Amino acid sequence: MSKKVLLLLGPNLNLVGVRETGIYGVETAETIKEEVIAYGKTLNIAVTVFQSNWEGALIDEIHKSRLEYDGVIINPGALTHYSYSLRDAIAGVNVPFVEVHMSNIHKREEFRHTSVTAPVCVGQITGFGKNGYLMALNYIAAI
Amino acid sequence: MSKKVLLLLGPNLNLVGVRETGIYGVETAETIKEEVIAYGKTLNIAVTVFQSNWEGALIDEIHKSRLEYDGVIINPGALTHYSYSLRDAIAGVNVPFVEVHMSNIHKREEFRHTSVTAPVCVGQITGFGKNGYLMALNYIAAI
Amino acid sequence: MSKKVLLLLGPNLNLVGVRETGIYGVETAETIKEEVIAYGKTLNIAVTVFQSNWEGALIDEIHKSRLEYDGVIINPGALTHYSYSLRDAIAGVNVPFVEVHMSNIHKREEFRHTSVTAPVCVGQITGFGKNGYLMALNYIAAI
Amino acid sequence: MSKKVLLLLGPNLNLVGVRETGIYGVETAETIKEEVIAYGKTLNIAVTVFQSNWEGALIDEIHKSRLEYDGVIINPGALTHYSYSLRDAIAGVNVPFVEVHMSNIHKREEFRHTSVTAPVCVGQITGFGKNGYLMALNYIAAI
Amino acid sequence: MSKKVLLLLGPNLNLVGVRETGIYGVETAETIKEEVIAYGKTLNIAVTVFQSNWEGALIDEIHKSRLEYDGVIINPGALTHYSYSLRDAIAGVNVPFVEVHMSNIHKREEFRHTSVTAPVCVGQITGFGKNGYLMALNYIAAI
Amino acid sequence: MSKKVLLLLGPNLNLVGVRETGIYGVETAETIKEEVIAYGKTLNIAVTVFQSNWEGALIDEIHKSRLEYDGVIINPGALTHYSYSLRDAIAGVNVPFVEVHMSNIHKREEFRHTSVTAPVCVGQITGFGKNGYLMALNYIAAI
Amino acid sequence: MSKKVLLLLGPNLNLVGVRETGIYGVETAETIKEEVIAYGKTLNIAVTVFQSNWEGALIDEIHKSRLEYDGVIINPGALTHYSYSLRDAIAGVNVPFVEVHMSNIHKREEFRHTSVTAPVCVGQITGFGKNGYLMALNYIAAI
Amino acid sequence: MSKKVLLLLGPNLNLVGVRETGIYGVETAETIKEEVIAYGKTLNIAVTVFQSNWEGALIDEIHKSRLEYDGVIINPGALTHYSYSLRDAIAGVNVPFVEVHMSNIHKREEFRHTSVTAPVCVGQITGFGKNGYLMALNYIAAI
Amino acid sequence: MSKKVLLLLGPNLNLVGVRETGIYGVETAETIKEEVIAYGKTLNIAVTVFQSNWEGALIDEIHKSRLEYDGVIINPGALTHYSYSLRDAIAGVNVPFVEVHMSNIHKREEFRHTSVTAPVCVGQITGFGKNGYLMALNYIAAI
Amino acid sequence: MSKKVLLLLGPNLNLVGVRETGIYGVETAETIKEEVIAYGKTLNIAVTVFQSNWEGALIDEIHKSRLEYDGVIINPGALTHYSYSLRDAIAGVNVPFVEVHMSNIHKREEFRHTSVTAPVCVGQITGFGKNGYLMALNYIAAI
Amino acid sequence: MSKKVLLLLGPNLNLVGVRETGIYGVETAETIKEEVIAYGKTLNIAVTVFQSNWEGALIDEIHKSRLEYDGVIINPGALTHYSYSLRDAIAGVNVPFVEVHMSNIHKREEFRHTSVTAPVCVGQITGFGKNGYLMALNYIAAI
Amino acid sequence: MSKKVLLLLGPNLNLVGVRETGIYGVETAETIKEEVIAYGKTLNIAVTVFQSNWEGALIDEIHKSRLEYDGVIINPGALTHYSYSLRDAIAGVNVPFVEVHMSNIHKREEFRHTSVTAPVCVGQITGFGKNGYLMALNYIAAI
Repeated sequence: MSKKVLLLLGPNLNLVGVRETGIYGVETAETIKEEVIAYGKTLNIAVTVFQSNWEGALIDEIHKSRLEYDGVIINPGALTHYSYSLRDAIAGVNVPFVEVHMSNIHKREEFRHTSVTAPVCVGQITGFGKNGYLMALNYIAAI
Repeated sequence: MSKKVLLLLGPNLNLVGVRETGIYGVETAETIKEEVIAYGKTLNIAVTVFQSNWEGALIDEIHKSRLEYDGVIINPGALTHYSYSLRDAIAGVNVPFVEVHMSNIHKREEFRHTSVTAPVCVGQITGFGKNGYLMALNYIAAI
Repeated sequence: MSKKVLLLLGPNLNLVGVRETGIYGVETAETIKEEVIAYGKTLNIAVTVFQSNWEGALIDEIHKSRLEYDGVIINPGALTHYSYSLRDAIAGVNVPFVEVHMSNIHKREEFRHTSVTAPVCVGQITGFGKNGYLMALNYIAAI
Repeated sequence: MSKKVLLLLGPNLNLVGVRETGIYGVETAETIKEEVIAYGKTLNIAVTVFQSNWEGALIDEIHKSRLEYDGVIINPGALTHYSYSLRDAIAGVNVPFVEVHMSNIHKREEFRHTSVTAPVCVGQITGFGKNGYLMALNYIAAI
Repeated sequence: MSKKVLLLLGPNLNLVGVRETGIYGVETAETIKEEVIAYGKTLNIAVTVFQSNWEGALIDEIHKSRLEYDGVIINPGALTHYSYSLRDAIAGVNVPFVEVHMSNIHKREEFRHTSVTAPVCVGQITGFGKNGYLMALNYIAAI
Repeated sequence: MSKKVLLLLGPNLNLVGVRETGIYGVETAETIKEEVIAYGKTLNIAVTVFQSNWEGALIDEIHKSRLEYDGVIINPGALTHYSYSLRDAIAGVNVPFVEVHMSNIHKREEFRHTSVTAPVCVGQITGFGKNGYLMALNYIAAI
Repeated sequence: MSKKVLLLLGPNLNLVGVRETGIYGVETAETIKEEVIAYGKTLNIAVTVFQSNWEGALIDEIHKSRLEYDGVIINPGALTHYSYSLRDAIAGVNVPFVEVHMSNIHKREEFRHTSVTAPVCVGQITGFGKNGYLMALNYIAAI
Repeated sequence: MSKKVLLLLGPNLNLVGVRETGIYGVETAETIKEEVIAYGKTLNIAVTVFQSNWEGALIDEIHKSRLEYDGVIINPGALTHYSYSLRDAIAGVNVPFVEVHMSNIHKREEFRHTSVTAPVCVGQITGFGKNGYLMALNYIAAI
Repeated sequence: MSKKVLLLLGPNLNLVGVRETGIYGVETAETIKEEVIAYGKTLNIAVTVFQSNWEGALIDEIHKSRLEYDGVIINPGALTHYSYSLRDAIAGVNVPFVEVHMSNIHKREEFRHTSVTAPVCVGQITGFGKNGYLMALNYIAAI
Repeated sequence: MSKKVLLLLGPNLNLVGVRETGIYGVETAETIKEEVIAYGKTLNIAVTVFQSNWEGALIDEIHKSRLEYDGVIINPGALTHYSYSLRDAIAGVNVPFVEVHMSNIHKREEFRHTSVTAPVCVGQITGFGKNGYLMALNYIAAI
Repeated sequence: MSKKVLLLLGPNLNLVGVRETGIYGVETAETIKEEVIAYGKTLNIAVTVFQSNWEGALIDEIHKSRLEYDGVIINPGALTHYSYSLRDAIAGVNVPFVEVHMSNIHKREEFRHTSVTAPVCVGQITGFGKNGYLMALNYIAAI
Repeated sequence: MSKKVLLLLGPNLNLVGVRETGIYGVETAETIKEEVIAYGKTLNIAVTVFQSNWEGALIDEIHKSRLEYDGVIINPGALTHYSYSLRDAIAGVNVPFVEVHMSNIHKREEFRHTSVTAPVCVGQITGFGKNGYLMALNYIAAI
């Protein structure tokens, strides 16, 4: 395929479809993962998915992305709101990052309104459920 | 076409491509408008564009959208950051709104980091230039 | 009649009875307007109603009120919370203003708790639904 | 009479007409009390007045109101701005409360701008002098 | 019995089981009081209960506790959030105080998140309903 | 004697000499009271002392002071920091008030740094132990 | 004449000389306008005046100024303090703007101390009454 | 045994009894662990202890708790004050969590006063040393 | 004489009696100085006065006071509110300092409410005009 | 000449033209001084210039201005942002002060946005380089 | 050698010389590491280097340092600004820690200005590039 | 010698070894000065020491440093926290400045945590006692 993209999922995103279904819907993380990969293929993009509840693992993966991917779609989970380490990792590699949140963070608790990672990403997509990942793929396909 | 969408553009967005090209790029508002309409057609969506520098005109248009559109893509320009009237207008109609910003508002001045309208929209897309409008169309096509 | 009163309604108040009926009730703006006028007559007050979604139109109307009315009842809608221009307009004319909100602004979002216009009005009535307008008329009748 | 209403007055309101007459006017607390009772009669409402400088006494009275009144008009005086105990008392009984302030609290010192009790009342009337009490009676008569 | 404990209950706690049952449950204050006394007996602790809506009465009682009790369990109600006088009273006697809240104050309104009395108590128990009082007794039994 | 002065002491000041002696010293409230009365006599001032842990009792006493005293020396204890009711009471009578704190409130916890009553007193004396009361008497003798 | 200047006046500035004369003086808006035009002639500057209470009208006018004027003197009235739309309009045209306020905004209410438009103007003149406009003309004549 | 409980201990809690003994006492982490297990047995509760300095390890363990335990007692250590990831993990599983702190967090540095995890736990126990764990077991035994 | 006291006066206090007489009264700095010295004599205290508009001069003088005086009465003027250098100077010498302000700083602008020097003085006297200096002398005489 | 004006320059303004020329331009302090004096002559104003890096020297000079000048043009340099002593000095003399900043303080670091001296001056001119001094002279000539 | 020192490097510091070279310079992490070790030898200090992107790994290493090193030089990377867990780990061991940042954190984004770890270290060195590590070694050699 | 360095010491640093020895140690300012000069010689650096309690004197000295020194080591004392004039002076000369504090400012009062001068220095060293000056010399020797 012409492009390679990493989908990086932070803490607790393995529980999507199980926990807090009122916010995240009932489709499981596994199903969504498959849909994103399938959609990627229609755009000629090979998607690799990596999920971890460990901040350090995510940072290591970001460092590696530098040499291996054309773009990274990242949903940092709750790390979005405090992990300056993640922010520095993103700022330290030359790959375009797209930040995605399934729920609309502006409708939720005060602390979720700000993102410490968004300022070092190309942009942020928030509120469109699993579609957010697909929209991010559209963007990477277009550039 | 199967869906009708209103693209609502707020103050100063008529100057895109002319003013502050370092931030917004050199493609003119007119060109972008045509690209969005063309892209809509490929998704079987009829896009109508309305731009105004007048808050009141935008509110009136939102009220009308209630009966005429399947979705609204809104870039409220600087009104994003203080127009609670716009917010109430959006909250008052039963049409899904998608907020789009061409630049990444999290990279700019402090006052641009928050949006008073995002909490009453489905979600927000920020930082992807004109692609943001296309991504929003993708979303409306998908729902 | 012995007194003339202007009822000035701000952005989105034309949608009362249609939008957010959980907050504002199901009586339409039109019905309420008629009730206020009718109630005014019982107090020997001629009520004129002016609604606009345009801040500038409201300011122009306030300037005119200087010569034509004995009192103004104003529900500035969301402009209450940020329109210092409206505030200066009110401060600039010699007519008593009564600020009315149908919902109790102290029970709602943080940003609705403060009013930039209330400090230049005689007082504020908040939370009594359409009765707020009638209570304001009672006050103007009494002074 | 068809309705019973308690007028509950907080600390220092026994001094109205004596203290700070520039703010509260020269009519004494006693005179105003009589006017409110008289006005109540014209609306077929029996008004009982209770004033105390003691927060505990006011709370006890609110607890009793649960069984004895159709509505309570409360001017908590300075307790408005810090007595969360009063707030909880009001929230704990099933009677509609109307908060009244004689002066316009939005025109005075910063600390008077917020009310910890207003969010658990039906609404708030501020700035209309003794008329505030009468307007509150009008509201209770109307519901 | 080997130990004497005072259970001190602040404003509105006489209404537990009656008011806001969604938050505090349906068991009445009287029933809970009896359960705490009974549970105390199983730990060889004589529990005395004192409830008042009057801050001054609570302070007087705290002063007396100095000579009469081995420990005090205090639920200051809403005074928790503003009564520095209560705080100074607790700090002024040499008896261990345990602060208890039936509801989880961290899940409720912002103003309930902080306690001005907790810093001068041994510790704080919040969120376990009536069990909080029993847990406090366990602690006093253990020391 | 030529002048009559009320010494008004707020919550917990009956425990001076007993509680927190590291802050307030070991002389008891009773001893200090006698010293102040004795010192007053040397200045030809008759001093009456009133202490209460009840805010309401203090307010009632302030209201009475209007007719009976040439000056009031007040140490509101912790009420200093939140009792707007006390503030309004002081503002409502035409007698000069002198606020005194035995400890230096600027050396203690943040919340003790501000006084809501000081702005309506002639002035404030803080940090000089029992001498503060004597200095206040000196001032009243001098005016 | 050698230079063309637009004098842009925001909401309520048509009432100068009529409203709040304690702050703005008794000379009417019309008289001041004539004085500014006359003074401009002495500097060989053709001054055009445009006043509006409508934010949208002011933005439109600013957009037009791009092609027609050598400089703009703007007194945005109360919009100074919240209209980010006006700010973006000014930032979007390549003409030097000079912000003028007749009163000294640093002597007035807190909210008037900051200007959201000043950072995109050449500079700000505040407090010199009508002379501020003349001083702005002096500056434009000098550059 | 009838119930299974997980005791989850966050960063640095392996050093209890070794570091900062002025705050945490001299009993070692190992000793306390054994006491809690022993006490659990008296309540017919099987306690498993898991300590880690790795946020990711704690989150993984929480995810597993969903299927294996009747309750979790958690002392998140310093993560209490910033780990929104831990908070989301707790919110994502259907097991009652009890938050425990050995020291009274309200007596320590400002940043320790708030907990980002407490709002998603049943409640919080703070200040009772190792007894806090036992009190939590009492609660779980009771429900 | 038995005691030696330095009266240290900061910036602009040489203008007392001349500037802002509405706040400071009409007695000149020179007259007040003489009154303080005379009053000191009645208490057997030799008062030396030093006034300067130069922060550095005041600091040098404080350093010298270490060896020469039994106490220092300081009115730091506006330096009170920002001169941490003055604060460190006071903290660095072993002489009791008494801070005096002629006006009641709690009645004036917000920035005057706090003192950076008061926490390192014995105490503060504010609001009693020139009497403040005399009261400070009384205190030093008493210790 | 008919008027005498003092131009008062604060810390570091002797380095203009030497330091930070990107902000202040390359014309030296000396050259600008001569231009201001020359321009003053054309307006029949005798300008005296005084520059100092010493706050105390500036205050002394302000005190003297009371008797010798018709107006003072002051650029307090960085003292603008914290010297309440300078503010009190200006407030203490009866001469009109005009505050001038060469750079636009609203475009620079946050701390430069506010001025503690502006509220006691007639007004403030900021952003026009050396022209600011000339505009100030124009104003003084006009009054 | 006479002393053993651990150089502890946090997240992303393995990328120095690769990422953001405008801030951190072009020397690689590996080269700097060797220089520090070499410099240590000249001071008779054996330096061990440990870098990790995992907060938990750093905490474990700190715990071990207790028994093995005479001092620790720590550059916590972005963890500096939020990891209270790291702070507690440092506070829990009896080894002197020296905090080092290569860039001057006071010149960068607001969030980098504060350090949650600095208060539990001996001190902090910021802004001297790789020299910071050498200066820290100098300090440890000296004590 | 090959390099010339100025050691600039601000207010109260002449008292080191005398005042607050718990914080600054017992070595006198004079002794430390000699040690720094001696240590400089070992690095082939000629150190000149200048101490003053006068902000203006420090600024003048900084201006002179422009032509005479290869580097400046500055301990601004308490001026660190508010003297923007000092900051501007440093920013205005082309010599590298190193800021040193003997105590760890992050362990002390809140107001000492921030430095207004650090952003215009190369870097800051805080907490290493007199060693801080030596470390600064090491840095200057190295560049």
